[in-house]
Amino acid sequence: MAGPRLQALPGFRDFLPKDTAARNYLFETWRSVARRYGFVEYETPLLEDTALYLKKSGGELSSQLFRFEDQGGRDVTLRPEVTPSMARLAAQHQRDFPKPLKWFEIGQCFRYEKPQKGRGREFFQFNVDIVGEAGPQADAELIALAIDTMLAFGFQKGDFIVRVSDRQAWVDFATKRGVPEEGITDFLQIIDKLEREKPEVTEQKLAAIGLSSAEVNNFIANPENASASFETIRAELTARGLGEYLSLDLSIVRGLAYYTGVVFEVFDSKKSMRAVAGGGRYDTLVETISDGAVSMPATGFAMGDYVIRNLIEETAHTDLLMEAWMQRNAAACEVYLVLADDSKRPEALEILSELRNAGISCDLPFTAAKINKQFQSAEKCGARFALVIGSELPELKLKVLSSRIEEPCHVLGLADWLKDRLKEPDGPLLA
Amino acid sequence: MAGPRLQALPGFRDFLPKDTAARNYLFETWRSVARRYGFVEYETPLLEDTALYLKKSGGELSSQLFRFEDQGGRDVTLRPEVTPSMARLAAQHQRDFPKPLKWFEIGQCFRYEKPQKGRGREFFQFNVDIVGEAGPQADAELIALAIDTMLAFGFQKGDFIVRVSDRQAWVDFATKRGVPEEGITDFLQIIDKLEREKPEVTEQKLAAIGLSSAEVNNFIANPENASASFETIRAELTARGLGEYLSLDLSIVRGLAYYTGVVFEVFDSKKSMRAVAGGGRYDTLVETISDGAVSMPATGFAMGDYVIRNLIEETAHTDLLMEAWMQRNAAACEVYLVLADDSKRPEALEILSELRNAGISCDLPFTAAKINKQFQSAEKCGARFALVIGSELPELKLKVLSSRIEEPCHVLGLADWLKDRLKEPDGPLLA
Repeated sequence: MAGPRLQALPGFRDFLPKDTAARNYLFETWRSVARRYGFVEYETPLLEDTALYLKKSGGELSSQLFRFEDQGGRDVTLRPEVTPSMARLAAQHQRDFPKPLKWFEIGQCFRYEKPQKGRGREFFQFNVDIVGEAGPQADAELIALAIDTMLAFGFQKGDFIVRVSDRQAWVDFATKRGVPEEGITDFLQIIDKLEREKPEVTEQKLAAIGLSSAEVNNFIANPENASASFETIRAELTARGLGEYLSLDLSIVRGLAYYTGVVFEVFDSKKSMRAVAGGGRYDTLVETISDGAVSMPATGFAMGDYVIRNLIEETAHTDLLMEAWMQRNAAACEVYLVLADDSKRPEALEILSELRNAGISCDLPFTAAKINKQFQSAEKCGARFALVIGSELPELKLKVLSSRIEEPCHVLGLADWLKDRLKEPDGPLLA
Repeated sequence: MAGPRLQALPGFRDFLPKDTAARNYLFETWRSVARRYGFVEYETPLLEDTALYLKKSGGELSSQLFRFEDQGGRDVTLRPEVTPSMARLAAQHQRDFPKPLKWFEIGQCFRYEKPQKGRGREFFQFNVDIVGEAGPQADAELIALAIDTMLAFGFQKGDFIVRVSDRQAWVDFATKRGVPEEGITDFLQIIDKLEREKPEVTEQKLAAIGLSSAEVNNFIANPENASASFETIRAELTARGLGEYLSLDLSIVRGLAYYTGVVFEVFDSKKSMRAVAGGGRYDTLVETISDGAVSMPATGFAMGDYVIRNLIEETAHTDLLMEAWMQRNAAACEVYLVLADDSKRPEALEILSELRNAGISCDLPFTAAKINKQFQSAEKCGARFALVIGSELPELKLKVLSSRIEEPCHVLGLADWLKDRLKEPDGPLLA
């Protein structure tokens, strides 16, 4: 047998410590914005019954499944998205919670796509949903949360825009022009592809259902076609001081089949013109998933980790914020214990325990090493201070690694003293 | 087509908000202990090339795989454990990091087992590994970290014990008694099953390779058979003040095939007599995984989320700690805005934004509702305070929901005032 490859599968990522820190920065930012908006966190399984996706998600998704038969003969799928599972969970447990449910989730999804920059076969997603509230105020709450998430990452006015549309406006448009109910899904797919499809192909497809590009484009161009929902959303966001991030864009309908009303996209308006997040109202999904047992209106959006991380790194003012967070939160070690006298190892271990118990991140070499080598180790692992333990014990020396200046200290009360010292700048303390 | 089931797959868990909060408590405790020990976080893919597991993990694991062919014809498997992926990652990137690597990971694993209390088909694992250090001081560091993790959850002396053993001692035992090298793996499996197998079956199996139960039991009973590694580990832990949690137990060899030396288990010594965590030294795995390209000694352990969560909930003093953490960290909402005059909605939205921007978790009803209903919503979502916004604006009232006592407040400087107020107890402030 050939040895296993020394690589992750194509489209799958290894997260080295720096990547993991960046991932945790996304998670923590997502979580903190969702929590101040009063959302609570849930999670659903990564593997689900395939039936959950086949008829519900629609579009390309059903051809991109990691789908297989498990050892018990079940047709199962690695989740390509979280919304159907969330709808299942909400239908099942809604009696136990006050309505509306304000729920968020952070977890992985899997889609068998061609891997490329900004897209893999697995990705993390931030999912935010409101279940049990039909009013556009709930859509406004989600759009505000999406905007505040972008602001929390340090993005500014001009970096991004939220494009809002309403599928219902298009359903009305098509119905008024004689498109039969069973033709609406195809019609919405033509609108979804407007920006990517050749104009003559679009024209042809529209002609086949008795419509023209001119009609469609006129409809998009006229702001008076905004739905009443959009006007409420605009008013709610303006009152929150977030109106300037909003833009009506009727060309948006979003790909998934289950959307029923307001849809929106957070759009990078500067660098890559990519959608950073997107979502919308799906008022019938809970009923479909629960086979009619529970009917609840719902609205939600998702933000993936690929595009937002690229965008943060490409934008100087957001990258600086992330780097600063990683410096504060992902250093391997704050204080490295240098053993100048190897016979003091038991005492050094005792000090190590005491400092760690006080919450200080610290380290000690595992085996005897020359003092210079120990200082090198201290620097390599990114410690701020080296605590030198030698024959002068209980007296100690604290060496600031950036300036190499030493300060005396003492075993008595060391943990408290060091915790205070860590709050001060690297330079030596003035007496 | 029949509708999809309204259930997660057998052995898979839905995490409702309370379960997610408990999961996050485990994650945060694991992460904080690992970080104060100077470990950095990494992550590897959930789906890997099956070859990574087939020859390396050994034991029952290879019959418990969620294994399938992906759309590209690859033989892939949902990871049943993280160590082989970590070994791959370490071999691939070790040049970029100072040695030894001190790495930890928190993520999901999948095993097709019979679901039962305390065991599912997916579970979260806390993996902690030291790669590039052969000395038993590294094993001692891991054992100390495992003990400090238990202490961080509130477990006390008497609740648990760490049972330490050394596979090498058994290899020496067998070799000295003429067991050929190719018989060692089978011999270790007999030792691994000692506690579960019928004595006469064990006797028979041992006889087949020229050994007896008496010899084996005498070896286990004699503390002088502890390896030199164990003596170092004992000294290191005693110096750290953790010696009392340690116990030599040569009957432990652990199931996985790749262990080569010291092995240990954190053992619940009170309730269920279950292993809460386990691990050991695997000095040849990096070399095997990298097809001989990189050779590095390594040692590590893992703790799953199932057993530890059950144990925390079954133990009064640890459950109290978890509940208190969940109260502090998982409340949906601290302040609920009650709209006494619906015409003030724009002003209320402005206040909502201001408070959320200040980091206060708060909420406002989406649509007009009677004031009593709003107070009910405030209580249902677990808010501490209701902020009543009415015609007296910019004057406001803050109602303490537990005592129903009201305090006056004002829009000017509201966020700062409220942040201070949230730090105080629920009762009304004395002037």
